[in-house]
Amino acid sequence: MAGRFITAEGSEGAGKTTQLAFMRDFLERQGYPVTLTREPGGTGLGEELRSLLLAHRDDGMALTTETLLMFAARAEHLDRVIRPALEEGHWVLCDRFTDTTYAYQGGGRGLPIAQIAILENWVQGDLRPDLTLLLDLPVAVGLARAGKRGMADRFERETVEFFERVRTVYLGRAGQAPERYRIVDAAQPIETVRVQVESLLTQWLERD
Amino acid sequence: MAGRFITAEGSEGAGKTTQLAFMRDFLERQGYPVTLTREPGGTGLGEELRSLLLAHRDDGMALTTETLLMFAARAEHLDRVIRPALEEGHWVLCDRFTDTTYAYQGGGRGLPIAQIAILENWVQGDLRPDLTLLLDLPVAVGLARAGKRGMADRFERETVEFFERVRTVYLGRAGQAPERYRIVDAAQPIETVRVQVESLLTQWLERD
Repeated sequence: MAGRFITAEGSEGAGKTTQLAFMRDFLERQGYPVTLTREPGGTGLGEELRSLLLAHRDDGMALTTETLLMFAARAEHLDRVIRPALEEGHWVLCDRFTDTTYAYQGGGRGLPIAQIAILENWVQGDLRPDLTLLLDLPVAVGLARAGKRGMADRFERETVEFFERVRTVYLGRAGQAPERYRIVDAAQPIETVRVQVESLLTQWLERD
Repeated sequence: MAGRFITAEGSEGAGKTTQLAFMRDFLERQGYPVTLTREPGGTGLGEELRSLLLAHRDDGMALTTETLLMFAARAEHLDRVIRPALEEGHWVLCDRFTDTTYAYQGGGRGLPIAQIAILENWVQGDLRPDLTLLLDLPVAVGLARAGKRGMADRFERETVEFFERVRTVYLGRAGQAPERYRIVDAAQPIETVRVQVESLLTQWLERD
């Protein structure tokens, strides 16, 4: 049986990492082999690129450069982790993927969507996630949660309007491809979200 | 008066760096403001990407990743160095540019030329060098010269056939766009090449 490629998306504070861990347990209990990964991918090169992106956030970097670096990390992640796992029949759960680029570099920073689509095709060919879970919540709630995790410093550099644009792109993409996206109200308590995600996943598995 | 964008290309051992320094002096003596630069561009980020590319040459890196990283460095170089200099009316002399990607990643490693063209358009828009000097020489001569400079270790990892493919792509591109390229026989003594380059440059300036 072929693997499936499932991604989780949403603003910081939406609980992606927590819910993906639940999903891994849920799928493994049903006997599916799971590879849980995250962008930039746990490859050594990906981690170095991540450091480089963060280190240069202060002195700035062209938006085109930033976007190309993200797709470079993605290319390596696909080549070394995602495609091999899918070929082995694993269910790949990925914390953020190309929807993040559409939402942050596109919606947030204003890179034209068509430009992102060119790189998506270049790097991925025909590969798209089979299912994308969008953990959606109001910007203020996400910022408050992320603040509690000591991440306020990262947010001080972006405006609330930035995150509103990120959210708008996420919701717009989900609305345009309902067969691929499932939107979950991530403002609910973690346990409620978990139950809802498992219910969605069960429905999706049965339909699959 | 607007600036001009001139690149030097060729295999290692062709003498690009030496000839570009001569060209800078030659143009400055005629009163042109010159910016001499090289890929990956003297930006801090570009140098870090260069280190990263070299460091991962051993444990490997997907060809797509390598190519995206090179274009990321190029995007930054264009944004921070090349475009600002051209806008100030400088003559930008650049040691290697996108022809290198066509020759090495395309000819050498086999990435489809059409894929490189997509990234070239994505990163550069309409910008192309006004003049590209191809310092051409037989592979064996270039390898022997580079070996004398203590660079043999880098060449041991590539075959002579690799460099033959690199040369073929360079010559093919120059042949297809004779208005942009000038081919110089770089197997001649440095001083002979210098005189020939200055002669070509003078003709190009008069025609320009």
